[in-house]
Amino acid sequence: MIISFIKLPKEAKEMLKEYEVKDENISDEDLEKAKIIIALPRDINESIISKAKNLEAIQTISAGVDGLPFHILPKNVKVFSNAGAFNIPVAEHAWALILASAKMVGRKKPYKTYLLTNKTLLVLGAGEIGSEIARIGKFAFNMYVIGVSRSFKYPQYFDERYNIDKLTEVIPRANVIVNALPLNKYTFKILNYDLLKHVAKECIIVNVGRGDTIDEEGIYRLLKERPDVRFATDVFWIKNGYEDFESKLWELENFTGTPHIAGGGGNEEVLMNAIIKAVKNVKMYLERGEAKNLVRIEDYIFTLSE
Amino acid sequence: MIISFIKLPKEAKEMLKEYEVKDENISDEDLEKAKIIIALPRDINESIISKAKNLEAIQTISAGVDGLPFHILPKNVKVFSNAGAFNIPVAEHAWALILASAKMVGRKKPYKTYLLTNKTLLVLGAGEIGSEIARIGKFAFNMYVIGVSRSFKYPQYFDERYNIDKLTEVIPRANVIVNALPLNKYTFKILNYDLLKHVAKECIIVNVGRGDTIDEEGIYRLLKERPDVRFATDVFWIKNGYEDFESKLWELENFTGTPHIAGGGGNEEVLMNAIIKAVKNVKMYLERGEAKNLVRIEDYIFTLSE
Repeated sequence: MIISFIKLPKEAKEMLKEYEVKDENISDEDLEKAKIIIALPRDINESIISKAKNLEAIQTISAGVDGLPFHILPKNVKVFSNAGAFNIPVAEHAWALILASAKMVGRKKPYKTYLLTNKTLLVLGAGEIGSEIARIGKFAFNMYVIGVSRSFKYPQYFDERYNIDKLTEVIPRANVIVNALPLNKYTFKILNYDLLKHVAKECIIVNVGRGDTIDEEGIYRLLKERPDVRFATDVFWIKNGYEDFESKLWELENFTGTPHIAGGGGNEEVLMNAIIKAVKNVKMYLERGEAKNLVRIEDYIFTLSE
Repeated sequence: MIISFIKLPKEAKEMLKEYEVKDENISDEDLEKAKIIIALPRDINESIISKAKNLEAIQTISAGVDGLPFHILPKNVKVFSNAGAFNIPVAEHAWALILASAKMVGRKKPYKTYLLTNKTLLVLGAGEIGSEIARIGKFAFNMYVIGVSRSFKYPQYFDERYNIDKLTEVIPRANVIVNALPLNKYTFKILNYDLLKHVAKECIIVNVGRGDTIDEEGIYRLLKERPDVRFATDVFWIKNGYEDFESKLWELENFTGTPHIAGGGGNEEVLMNAIIKAVKNVKMYLERGEAKNLVRIEDYIFTLSE
């Protein structure tokens, strides 16, 4: 049985018509029979995992899988992310945050605008989202694009490509830095004060990855010390198990943000596309025993802590 | 003599080294000798015009010339605008306003995001700025671009091109409308309630032209009646002779803006480029007796009134 914690649209149900699917009124019995669960990471908890004794795979609707309870997942359960389902909306969102910061949109008081055309863009994480952000920088604003990533899916959008160990060297060269890294044990608080203090004059920093890849106290200190630096984020820090959109950053003139809505914020079109992509992947798994976006679970076993 | 009301950088002075140039401590005697004045429209008043008895031409630093006292200009005085000097910063700014509206940047409360990719963009005014806005829509977001203009300088960025008399027919087709029209007797309050009430669901309207091309009461009424419509502007309405950044629009959730900083907001690089471009045009005039961006003065003789 396939269980979905999110109501599936007609088109998605049609794709799975050869299989038993349940997407509402899910009972403990259903969970016990579940071979595959389609869900957002926050829908999955210890109780569900303990009941789903026949579970083979979890397919997330979200691109990020960092909210899953990896430490209690049985070794045989596979996790598939929905990487690529949000590249268009999240890349648009990243550019909204970059441009709103450059032009200080929403402030009645006049501020100096920062030009983007012909400047240097540094993209951290060159998956589907990071590559789309790079493409826009290149074609819309003729930017010189540097990428830092474990792998480059679309290398053509990057003028220079580095592994993450070169971060310290490339940070000072960028006029705009966009973080699109997933949150895992390698990226937790990777952007800390000691690194960020080397950013160029009038640097714009944007986060569309996960809040906890940046050290909140570190970025706060940087923005207080450097009024020329501007920071905008869609993603906030996990506090007591939840992403907390309250932050003292909102008090700063050189900060702006949105409350984790890059993936749609209730936009039906975005959500439908994401569900269909997730279901396509589930179908591939059912037919071939393998699918896209298999998550390396060992990367995600770590603790969010100060 | 060439008089500049704005301090000229070295590079600009070098270009005019064969001519007598004054860019500070300008006396009445200097004004009397002035053959050319380089200035922002707001620098030029009745007293200056009456003293400049040998004036041949005014070269503005700004792209728009609508602030000049056209009704008192002697018939023989030519006006050259600086059209094209701000196409990059203003097009970037237009996209900052579009994207900030689409993603509701700066609001801690979650809003529905609007997607831009593959949607329809309507650009009003296809000069240097409008064309650059169209180009970004096409290449960054694969938008279908409709242009409404008197002339199309770069027709390749527009999928459909119309004269201004087709405005009523194209307005309902657009997901994003950007106004980059100059303010003159043809465009004064051209965007009024009766026209704008036909915009599509979830339309984003952006103004980087001049405030008075839109009827303030009309757009206010539209935004109150249609919470799905979002409006962002860099330009405001002239009240008592000055652009007044105070507006009741700021109280609305579906409004955002900036206080006329698209042309730089104190960005030295933007200002320097604009001055150099203006001075190049002045040099062309001095050498050939003609130059680029000659303004049709009769288009600008009208009264801002309710």
